[in-house]
Amino acid sequence: MTRAAIAARLTGFAALLLAASAGATDRAQASDDPAWAITEDLTTEIGPRPAGSDREAAARRWAVERLKAMGFANVREEAYRMPVWQRGEEAAWLTAPFLPQQLTVVGLGNSGATGAQGIEAEIVYFESYDALAAAPDSAVKGKIVFVDNQMKAAQDGSGYGYFGRGRFIGPNVAAKKGALAIVIRSIGTDSHRIAHAGVTNFADGVTPIPAAALSNPDADQLVRQWRRHPGALRLKLLLTPRRLEQQASGNVIAEVPGSDPAASPVILACHLDSWDQGTGAIDDAAGCGIITAAAKHVMAAGQPRRTIRILWAGAEEVGGFGGKAYFDAHGKERHAAALESDFGADRVWRVDFKLPDSAKPLTDRIAAALAPLGITRGKDPASGGTDIGALVAAGTPVIDLQQDGTRYFDIHHTPDDTLDKVDPAQLRQNVAAWTATLAILANSSDSELP
Amino acid sequence: MTRAAIAARLTGFAALLLAASAGATDRAQASDDPAWAITEDLTTEIGPRPAGSDREAAARRWAVERLKAMGFANVREEAYRMPVWQRGEEAAWLTAPFLPQQLTVVGLGNSGATGAQGIEAEIVYFESYDALAAAPDSAVKGKIVFVDNQMKAAQDGSGYGYFGRGRFIGPNVAAKKGALAIVIRSIGTDSHRIAHAGVTNFADGVTPIPAAALSNPDADQLVRQWRRHPGALRLKLLLTPRRLEQQASGNVIAEVPGSDPAASPVILACHLDSWDQGTGAIDDAAGCGIITAAAKHVMAAGQPRRTIRILWAGAEEVGGFGGKAYFDAHGKERHAAALESDFGADRVWRVDFKLPDSAKPLTDRIAAALAPLGITRGKDPASGGTDIGALVAAGTPVIDLQQDGTRYFDIHHTPDDTLDKVDPAQLRQNVAAWTATLAILANSSDSELP
Repeated sequence: MTRAAIAARLTGFAALLLAASAGATDRAQASDDPAWAITEDLTTEIGPRPAGSDREAAARRWAVERLKAMGFANVREEAYRMPVWQRGEEAAWLTAPFLPQQLTVVGLGNSGATGAQGIEAEIVYFESYDALAAAPDSAVKGKIVFVDNQMKAAQDGSGYGYFGRGRFIGPNVAAKKGALAIVIRSIGTDSHRIAHAGVTNFADGVTPIPAAALSNPDADQLVRQWRRHPGALRLKLLLTPRRLEQQASGNVIAEVPGSDPAASPVILACHLDSWDQGTGAIDDAAGCGIITAAAKHVMAAGQPRRTIRILWAGAEEVGGFGGKAYFDAHGKERHAAALESDFGADRVWRVDFKLPDSAKPLTDRIAAALAPLGITRGKDPASGGTDIGALVAAGTPVIDLQQDGTRYFDIHHTPDDTLDKVDPAQLRQNVAAWTATLAILANSSDSELP
Repeated sequence: MTRAAIAARLTGFAALLLAASAGATDRAQASDDPAWAITEDLTTEIGPRPAGSDREAAARRWAVERLKAMGFANVREEAYRMPVWQRGEEAAWLTAPFLPQQLTVVGLGNSGATGAQGIEAEIVYFESYDALAAAPDSAVKGKIVFVDNQMKAAQDGSGYGYFGRGRFIGPNVAAKKGALAIVIRSIGTDSHRIAHAGVTNFADGVTPIPAAALSNPDADQLVRQWRRHPGALRLKLLLTPRRLEQQASGNVIAEVPGSDPAASPVILACHLDSWDQGTGAIDDAAGCGIITAAAKHVMAAGQPRRTIRILWAGAEEVGGFGGKAYFDAHGKERHAAALESDFGADRVWRVDFKLPDSAKPLTDRIAAALAPLGITRGKDPASGGTDIGALVAAGTPVIDLQQDGTRYFDIHHTPDDTLDKVDPAQLRQNVAAWTATLAILANSSDSELP
């Protein structure tokens, strides 16, 4: 296809771009938009979609039906099996030094269990993950560790890595030092009585201890009590999760076949599973809506040169099992580029690239197409997300359409991850950005992207 | 005391007024403020304070100790007994037409019980309380009623009366029509997965049915499902509350004795009890902090002419038992004026009066003192609150220092009613407004206020 032909096709998106910049917010209107429709329907008809559960399986069946109905080709499930951590009863009370007060708590994925009677012990306070890591075993042994560690909001989501250590590896460190259990301040930026879930991981040979997150206001309360009576706080914790071996999970894949069978495909990823407390609207129904709407729009504009492959990955939240299974099955195939949408539904504000040098004119065309949407080019290389992580690690070129994360960690992994948090106008801007990018990518030449 | 002496005394508050208008927000600073200290300490050391519970009793003991330590006179508990509705287990699931989805729910005070196994039935949707009231019994009989009814935020809190009918009397109406149970959209203006509690009342001879409120996002979900499959929705509801007869409750009273024993006192009220889901920071620890700080500041400036009586009422949330008990004990005493703080901790924006005509110069002095704090005079007569309701009904003069209620119903009666929702700068503005008003009132002449 000539440059002129591609340019002509791109003008087909002009109306879409205009609609996005106009920023209309009528949700009724939005229901005509495939991104909104996927987000609304998946969160309403399926709701929570925990990895390896019957609900995730129902979501896969729903996804296959929806993607076929939208006209995609080669729609299929690709199954795999995985171990599952299943939430049980969860509760916590500060039992001393004041009258018992119940706290809002959520167990962390891979947490150990307290037994049906719960456990009660003295709390030991640490200001940060680093303070816990530096503490002698004697300060921790037989106690319930609390890690205070207040994440602040940032547009690029930075801070999740730093503060997230309290959750990612804090429990493992506490377990190795002999702690009875651990509670952390939620890795979240809101001030509501909702606790942020997420996985933690224990090293081989380390027995998992009970591990939970408190809501921010509950953590504040614990800190105030600690400051009044350091050393006198006690916590009762009840967590009764269980582990299931080798449960069924799977990816859902769909394609827009390209006109040139020899050309390597572009892969777009999101994840179908969600944490169980909310309905997974911003994490990640909206991501699936965005990439799928973009593919649909490009398909509607005429057959692209490259095949577009959509991956609705399974089991992202608990360790990226879907992305790994995709790589195991398809990692040896050549992919022209990989993109993932998994950071909510707020507007794209920056684009980052990690493409071969030959793609310089391509990146310039994409950056020029995105500028009218208010998207500027970043200085950092793109890095992708969990579902395409193995592909990127193996050298697949990648583009990140960075979403505004200012309020993402208010909602992330909480009961509050529901449809009302998705702004239809910003969702449309995402679709416009993805459509513009995909149209250029899917029609790029082999000299630019091999 | 001469007008000049009063004027001189008032200049003592100049620094306070200035501090409030400066709007410093440092919470560390705020900890020197008695209003903040009361709010923080009560919510931290006691936490939730349900009416007629051991926790409310602990709060009374705490209050007596605190008020004595602050230098008030005649600090005492005044006991009464009352029936108590005690929350049990609470859960709800949409069981059809899709895979079961758990909803965030809270039982309404005075709700009936479902039994330990819960109940499950078809849902019937009503757009509003009026639609329910107009429905024939046959539309409701044997079903679980849902009343949609989305309250919007307003600065003056208007809308609570109109939308609140869904909670106040919706369950009674549904019960009379033969409904099996009722769930309502929370009477609240937020979009979080937190349900708003509150009492409902069944008429004599009407058997209470199970009655609960859904969070706004859960109500949205129910509505979306209803629109897709009207008539096909089923709800499983579990509510196991119980009723306790004649439990101990009480008011806490403290005074600043006036220099003129013949002068009628000014009474300032707040309530000590709170709903159980949060720690009752904005409802109404802050109110107790505000009125008490104002009395303390006026006392510190020199003995006022009139006695200032502080009423920390018990059991307001469940029917104003404390206010009624106060009226039973003291209703025959003459009160110069009554004021109540029970609408959060955001700034006072308007002042309303309902005083005798003789008080015209007094109202002008108060309005002039409040204007520098950004407070304007309203057109409506003051009406007071629940704790002084019986006094006002009996003709006691009343002044309302109206607080900004724009975000009050985001938090009201939810787990989110915690200390972090109190803005120290706005709390200080409240104290300044109350102090200025009280200084004038407590030194007013008998010719102005008999």
